[in-house]
Amino acid sequence: MTPNKNGTGARTTESIGDGAVMHALATRLFPINRSITGDGVRETLRIISEHLPELTMHEVSSGAKVLDWIVPPEWNVRDAFVLDPHGQKIIDFKVNNLHLVGYSEPVDRTVSLDELQEHLHSLPDQPDAIPYVTSYYERRWGFCVTEDQRSNITEKGDYTILIDSELNEDGHLTYGELIVEGASEEEVFLSTYICHPSMANNELSGPVVTTHLANWLLTEQRRYTYRIVFIPETIGAITYLSRNMDVMRERTIAGYNLTCVGDDRAYSFLPSRNGNTLSDQVALHVLGHSHPDFKHYTYLDRGSDERQYCAPGIDLPVASVMRTKYGRYAEYHTSLDDLTVVTPAGLGGAFDVLRRCLECIEANRRPRAAVLGEPQLGRRGLYPTLSTKKSAVGVRDMMNLIAYSDGDLSLLEIADHIGVPMWDLIPIVEKLENEEILTRT
Amino acid sequence: MTPNKNGTGARTTESIGDGAVMHALATRLFPINRSITGDGVRETLRIISEHLPELTMHEVSSGAKVLDWIVPPEWNVRDAFVLDPHGQKIIDFKVNNLHLVGYSEPVDRTVSLDELQEHLHSLPDQPDAIPYVTSYYERRWGFCVTEDQRSNITEKGDYTILIDSELNEDGHLTYGELIVEGASEEEVFLSTYICHPSMANNELSGPVVTTHLANWLLTEQRRYTYRIVFIPETIGAITYLSRNMDVMRERTIAGYNLTCVGDDRAYSFLPSRNGNTLSDQVALHVLGHSHPDFKHYTYLDRGSDERQYCAPGIDLPVASVMRTKYGRYAEYHTSLDDLTVVTPAGLGGAFDVLRRCLECIEANRRPRAAVLGEPQLGRRGLYPTLSTKKSAVGVRDMMNLIAYSDGDLSLLEIADHIGVPMWDLIPIVEKLENEEILTRT
Amino acid sequence: MTPNKNGTGARTTESIGDGAVMHALATRLFPINRSITGDGVRETLRIISEHLPELTMHEVSSGAKVLDWIVPPEWNVRDAFVLDPHGQKIIDFKVNNLHLVGYSEPVDRTVSLDELQEHLHSLPDQPDAIPYVTSYYERRWGFCVTEDQRSNITEKGDYTILIDSELNEDGHLTYGELIVEGASEEEVFLSTYICHPSMANNELSGPVVTTHLANWLLTEQRRYTYRIVFIPETIGAITYLSRNMDVMRERTIAGYNLTCVGDDRAYSFLPSRNGNTLSDQVALHVLGHSHPDFKHYTYLDRGSDERQYCAPGIDLPVASVMRTKYGRYAEYHTSLDDLTVVTPAGLGGAFDVLRRCLECIEANRRPRAAVLGEPQLGRRGLYPTLSTKKSAVGVRDMMNLIAYSDGDLSLLEIADHIGVPMWDLIPIVEKLENEEILTRT
Repeated sequence: MTPNKNGTGARTTESIGDGAVMHALATRLFPINRSITGDGVRETLRIISEHLPELTMHEVSSGAKVLDWIVPPEWNVRDAFVLDPHGQKIIDFKVNNLHLVGYSEPVDRTVSLDELQEHLHSLPDQPDAIPYVTSYYERRWGFCVTEDQRSNITEKGDYTILIDSELNEDGHLTYGELIVEGASEEEVFLSTYICHPSMANNELSGPVVTTHLANWLLTEQRRYTYRIVFIPETIGAITYLSRNMDVMRERTIAGYNLTCVGDDRAYSFLPSRNGNTLSDQVALHVLGHSHPDFKHYTYLDRGSDERQYCAPGIDLPVASVMRTKYGRYAEYHTSLDDLTVVTPAGLGGAFDVLRRCLECIEANRRPRAAVLGEPQLGRRGLYPTLSTKKSAVGVRDMMNLIAYSDGDLSLLEIADHIGVPMWDLIPIVEKLENEEILTRT
Repeated sequence: MTPNKNGTGARTTESIGDGAVMHALATRLFPINRSITGDGVRETLRIISEHLPELTMHEVSSGAKVLDWIVPPEWNVRDAFVLDPHGQKIIDFKVNNLHLVGYSEPVDRTVSLDELQEHLHSLPDQPDAIPYVTSYYERRWGFCVTEDQRSNITEKGDYTILIDSELNEDGHLTYGELIVEGASEEEVFLSTYICHPSMANNELSGPVVTTHLANWLLTEQRRYTYRIVFIPETIGAITYLSRNMDVMRERTIAGYNLTCVGDDRAYSFLPSRNGNTLSDQVALHVLGHSHPDFKHYTYLDRGSDERQYCAPGIDLPVASVMRTKYGRYAEYHTSLDDLTVVTPAGLGGAFDVLRRCLECIEANRRPRAAVLGEPQLGRRGLYPTLSTKKSAVGVRDMMNLIAYSDGDLSLLEIADHIGVPMWDLIPIVEKLENEEILTRT
Repeated sequence: MTPNKNGTGARTTESIGDGAVMHALATRLFPINRSITGDGVRETLRIISEHLPELTMHEVSSGAKVLDWIVPPEWNVRDAFVLDPHGQKIIDFKVNNLHLVGYSEPVDRTVSLDELQEHLHSLPDQPDAIPYVTSYYERRWGFCVTEDQRSNITEKGDYTILIDSELNEDGHLTYGELIVEGASEEEVFLSTYICHPSMANNELSGPVVTTHLANWLLTEQRRYTYRIVFIPETIGAITYLSRNMDVMRERTIAGYNLTCVGDDRAYSFLPSRNGNTLSDQVALHVLGHSHPDFKHYTYLDRGSDERQYCAPGIDLPVASVMRTKYGRYAEYHTSLDDLTVVTPAGLGGAFDVLRRCLECIEANRRPRAAVLGEPQLGRRGLYPTLSTKKSAVGVRDMMNLIAYSDGDLSLLEIADHIGVPMWDLIPIVEKLENEEILTRT
């Protein structure tokens, strides 16, 4: 497989995780009108599956009971606009899908200026931003406009409202799933969401980076099995859990929720509810060594699908490694969260950190010294035979690794303890295992 | 029952915990000559029982063996004074009962100035204070005077000493006890002491606030049983333990020693020996949220009956919530510890904090989510159905409470974890229990 | 036994631990050419046994397999020098044994200036220091010179090299051992090394202080058995473990590695790998109270025989209490580490701290209150019978000790908890045990 003419192809090693390639995929997905159900989700998954043919699509009927929730009717929109008293189109869904409140019911009538105003949403503090507003679980209609736009809608008269939408009780909720089989049944879980219309960091960065991570995982046989889902946020996570949580609770050793992984302003970490799972330890280790100025949130700052995955009784080890966290950047949940907020460098940096997290999970083990006392490394060519004041410096990490290889501490814990990145120890532990100085447990 | 004409009545909701009402009761009790035994204790308990008719009085014989101790003879004083060589009464117990060393043996003779001086106690650093001195377990006699007073006793000659006291080997030690039966046999223990003569903060504030807390507890059915004792310090605690410690060790889940709860200068906390009992956690939570500048002592600063209750092998969960701690204010153990040190505001503030501690103990439980994943709160009217940038703020405490309701963490621990006062969560947890979103465990 | 005329005798109480006496012994041992094997080790042990007649010497054959290592050939040197083209002796082992690289093979030939230079070692940054260099496990030869000396070796011509050494495959490794039998089979382990040629702090301070500690231990019957070894570093520790580790793992409750205990510049602590053994706790307690500015290293800074004793699977509780740590003073591993770096005050201070550590280990126990509640100390004459504001101050440590004597906390833990040196509590606990207020467990 080679990159297609859009430059967004994958599975070729050189393009996996390439920021520009990921940005191009985000650009292609950007215009689609996604919501928690509907054809926008299907189209998004279809494009992703061009890059990830192993992805399977699943449909769950509207009305299905999922944990404490009901899958809502499927929503699709053909057109939506507002005409002013002169028949001029002053708000147009086709210009920006954020103009329509998500899940707006069908409307075809005229309203007064006053009634129109009750259905408009804008942000006085961000006068050039269209806000993102939804009403999934109560029937409403509305339009979102910039404050500047709204300030021009002052003329008394009849405004024509057309919302050519459908709320189909016989519809479906759609999600994508990919199981990458590893040597072990134990699983690592990756979740990202595909339910926001045209917004780039808080949406498209997640599925795009996840697509590339999945392709990277597929380049070779892995130790762990990977469960990767592209779902609508909240209702999709709940739906997926309602169908899979027993096996997930049994097998999942680590997991990440992928969201807001596209800007290049910061790195952020939000722990699992437990706070000390393998996912948490690995992410803190990787960020601590590669981006020590990362922002460390607490679970009280949560706001995405860890709310479901980490809920009491579900308790999956799911943390979030992000660039700038949702809700903590000005453009969040507005039309300003566009493809200038998300950059190739932003996507590439997030990919690198998350790939490193998965590499650490794959390489983690509890090394055990195979000899009692220090091994005689000199006769194996692993230690200088001339002893001077400085002999030990060059082999310090190796000696420290051996000194803590008690079969109880994990390689990650040893790396934390001796203060070096785990990825510096991986080649050393492999060499020592080959020399039968350490055994892998 | 209505407040009596002294304004110190209780059991009417409006007067319970009222600072002025408590101060009036302290004023009435102030002049009585209390010691670790004797009629002063009985009179004190009799007046308290006017306000707490359920109080029972107990008498333990002098000579009784109690743990490692022997109940001492009962001490009563009819009169005590010193006449100068001219027959002038220069020290008079009837003017201030602190003038007589506690447990002074009977004396009726003349002494020289030199001999008199050997029996006088004063405080050079506090020239206007009469010190408080006792000699319970060795027969002595003595008088306590201000340094100013002492500096005038310089004339050579015969001084007449009269101490018309009695040390009755057939007497008793007296204490008061009240068991407030709750729904559970599990007990909360409140202890205060009634063995100091005319001193206000380090003595009367304790029994007065305890009397009002007892009345507050009696206003409704409680979850826990309350064991409330008014005892002489040290020997009374030891006596009480010698008779009740088996049941107390089995049933006591929390307890407080009430002393120095009357001034309005500070709030203080002294932990149990264990340091992490429910009593400690609750007191730290309440003080931390209501008076965050409180003074945090350690068990090494102890000095009251926690010395017995927390002793090895007894190990009751007894902590102290105080205003200014004994030994840490200038007037402590002198005649200056009077009804100006103790104020209505001081008593009222201590009552409020301790009542809140008891409320938190009563309301504590381990809530457990009754649904898997986040409940759909919108359809129950508990969550805004229109989703905007700020939807989550107003329901943050509720969402956090649900997120941590794993049946393992207590409501107190959840409140500490999410950083809000437990009393803000109590109405929320009750609402969620009614909605069957949480179950009480 | 009395001090000999060198002033280095021991076992007389007054000279044990005396800094001047220890410095004199170091001075006597200084010139000997020690290495990890050879007659220098035997001569060193012979002189030590003059002061410690109970010491036994052990010989292990070259070629013996010890854990992962092989005991090397025995190395002895009769003479070694370099003659310049004019026949002048420009480097002479007999002037300073550091001039010869340790374990240099026999050589008798002439070499060019260039070839000579390849076999010279010097320290450009320390121009007046002869470095200490060895090559135990690979056959080499070489000479160590000061940088100043080296800068004069510039003449082209034939240089005569004579190294009259022997590497005897039928030789032995020699070590000394002393078992001081105590009341219990449980052991305390002391290890020091005797393998460096003429260097004072990083070598001779260790055996000298150990010799005096052994004599101090022999002055009376001890609670614990003491296992004391004088061994070559690394290979000696490995050899000793290969023969004794089963019994040591079973019985050892604490241990110290004695090295760099002779200068008077600092106190230092290097923990065991576990970091929280009795050895660690005691050393931190003693240094914390007696030398609170001590330097606290981590196990990552290790470099002596704790590398063997604390290795995974061996896991002995061995920590190091030092003056200035090896590798952290300029003179380390050079000819400058001489008897001016090591001082009587330095040796004496180290002895005092280590003796105090052993005293604390001997005296440690878990006291348990024999009475419930506070004991009535007044009737036993242990508490003032006159109660005033300040009665409790003089007996504070005793009261705190009783308050924490729950049979669970050790005396060391109680001392740490109440913030006093354990040696202040030892006479108090003994008095309270005699009074049957505490029982020893």
